[in-house]
Amino acid sequence: MTAEHDFYGVIAPILTPFRDDGAPDAERYLAHARWLLADGCTGLAPFGTTGEANSLGLEERMGLLDALVDGGVDPKVLMPGTGLCALSDTVTVSSHAVEKGCGGVMMLPPFYYKAVSDDGLFAYYSEVIQRVGDKRLKIYLYHIPPVAQVGLSVELVGRLIEAYPETVVGLKDSSGDWDNTKALLEAFPGFTIFPGSEIFLLEGMRNGGAGCITATGNVNARMIRGVYDNWETDRADELQGEITAVRKSIQARPMIPMLKSIIAQYRNDPGWTNMRPPFLQLDKAQAQAGIAELTEQSGFELKAA
Amino acid sequence: MTAEHDFYGVIAPILTPFRDDGAPDAERYLAHARWLLADGCTGLAPFGTTGEANSLGLEERMGLLDALVDGGVDPKVLMPGTGLCALSDTVTVSSHAVEKGCGGVMMLPPFYYKAVSDDGLFAYYSEVIQRVGDKRLKIYLYHIPPVAQVGLSVELVGRLIEAYPETVVGLKDSSGDWDNTKALLEAFPGFTIFPGSEIFLLEGMRNGGAGCITATGNVNARMIRGVYDNWETDRADELQGEITAVRKSIQARPMIPMLKSIIAQYRNDPGWTNMRPPFLQLDKAQAQAGIAELTEQSGFELKAA
Repeated sequence: MTAEHDFYGVIAPILTPFRDDGAPDAERYLAHARWLLADGCTGLAPFGTTGEANSLGLEERMGLLDALVDGGVDPKVLMPGTGLCALSDTVTVSSHAVEKGCGGVMMLPPFYYKAVSDDGLFAYYSEVIQRVGDKRLKIYLYHIPPVAQVGLSVELVGRLIEAYPETVVGLKDSSGDWDNTKALLEAFPGFTIFPGSEIFLLEGMRNGGAGCITATGNVNARMIRGVYDNWETDRADELQGEITAVRKSIQARPMIPMLKSIIAQYRNDPGWTNMRPPFLQLDKAQAQAGIAELTEQSGFELKAA
Repeated sequence: MTAEHDFYGVIAPILTPFRDDGAPDAERYLAHARWLLADGCTGLAPFGTTGEANSLGLEERMGLLDALVDGGVDPKVLMPGTGLCALSDTVTVSSHAVEKGCGGVMMLPPFYYKAVSDDGLFAYYSEVIQRVGDKRLKIYLYHIPPVAQVGLSVELVGRLIEAYPETVVGLKDSSGDWDNTKALLEAFPGFTIFPGSEIFLLEGMRNGGAGCITATGNVNARMIRGVYDNWETDRADELQGEITAVRKSIQARPMIPMLKSIIAQYRNDPGWTNMRPPFLQLDKAQAQAGIAELTEQSGFELKAA
């Protein structure tokens, strides 16, 4: 932890493994969390988009978080996703995260109804904060319009910070739009802002960012951490070029099943490829082609757990 | 009930009232349900888009359904929405609806992840059906791409009917696209298809539709029922013209808060205007303007409950 930000560095939105019977696999999950923290992650964001979070039921989310914390992972480095469609469900899982001692939560806006007003979203977050009613609640807003469709405008973020300065402390920007990230960084100095991809890590650090929260942190945390640790050195641009190349190789195929296939291959554990519908696993040929392409990238190597 | 369809006629996706403290109001809910069934509705679809369903938590949905059934509403005329993002939550609320004796359930596809494949959606519905594992489960697919973004292609609907002919028995088409509704009616004769707006009621009936499931059924069921009952008579087009005019007047403003404002006004019960964030109530001037415009429409009248 730094004085500047409670969360910083390389945070992986941890993948969720499923057993052959379709249930979340708490054992593989805990092992993967430990491995990520040993591999360079400074924090973990369970139940992000990458973690198939919105395919997990309420009880499943809380059960998996219990598995991590009860399994010995320091809850201070955990930022579980708790933003659901329904205010009352969001309050339930957010309160649970606070009770478990999590350092923060990552909160999507309610995403079923479209074209809702900023006033409506402000009312939603206000109501959640009041109902949780706990000073330990630290919210990292989650802006991912390509998936959620409902986004958080710079103006709305400003209103939330002003109204709840002790609670609304950061944001993950997965818009994929650097101009938006830059606008946020300029508008809110001191606010903890993470680009949602390592492609913007170096540019983010140079503009006051806190690191990145990135899907590929699940397989490439060490190299990404290298950029974070060296961003002020002469090697920064070269290192950034390497992680950008790895990222682009991985995202050339459906990202979540591709990441699971990479882990399954390196750990020789086919169970890792299981996905929950509506997602399906990659067919083997596609996964093999992706892995072949990736390992030809200079510098990419996944240490077996 | 007819021999042809278990559900038919005018079905209202019943509005969900909230108390001043923000909790769902089971008392007003039950009273409204009874009134709708007395006013011409042949069935009710709790927890549709209009019912702010996706702002209701899991427990709240099940509690409100209990309130209706335990309050004496015949569960055979109830088609609660049970399609949530997470497979496991969908199984929980669908099983609950089956246990309560509901005649059917209306099921959205999982709607967080975008651009998922038809194979993935097929796997999702298959898994839900197998996990519920009850022959009494009767699914009405819910196609509403303008809101859910994730839709159900005609091909996918055909695959589901073929695989689960006793379970996948109908569909609500809220695409707003008559060509899509017509394509479904032509492709699947005998399948129970409801346009999601009374604007397409008469055209639907002439092409083998089962009626309509429509938001405005909450305030105008009697007139809409008139079209359903008279669709084969000489008066059908004239009656359709009248209900279309009422619909267009209502949908000229944000539909859900407008409907609540109409009910609040006619019942002299301001509590009915409460909305749950991210929705907000209409301001009074906007609501009054909408009601004034509506009551100038020939034939529109809401009988107080």
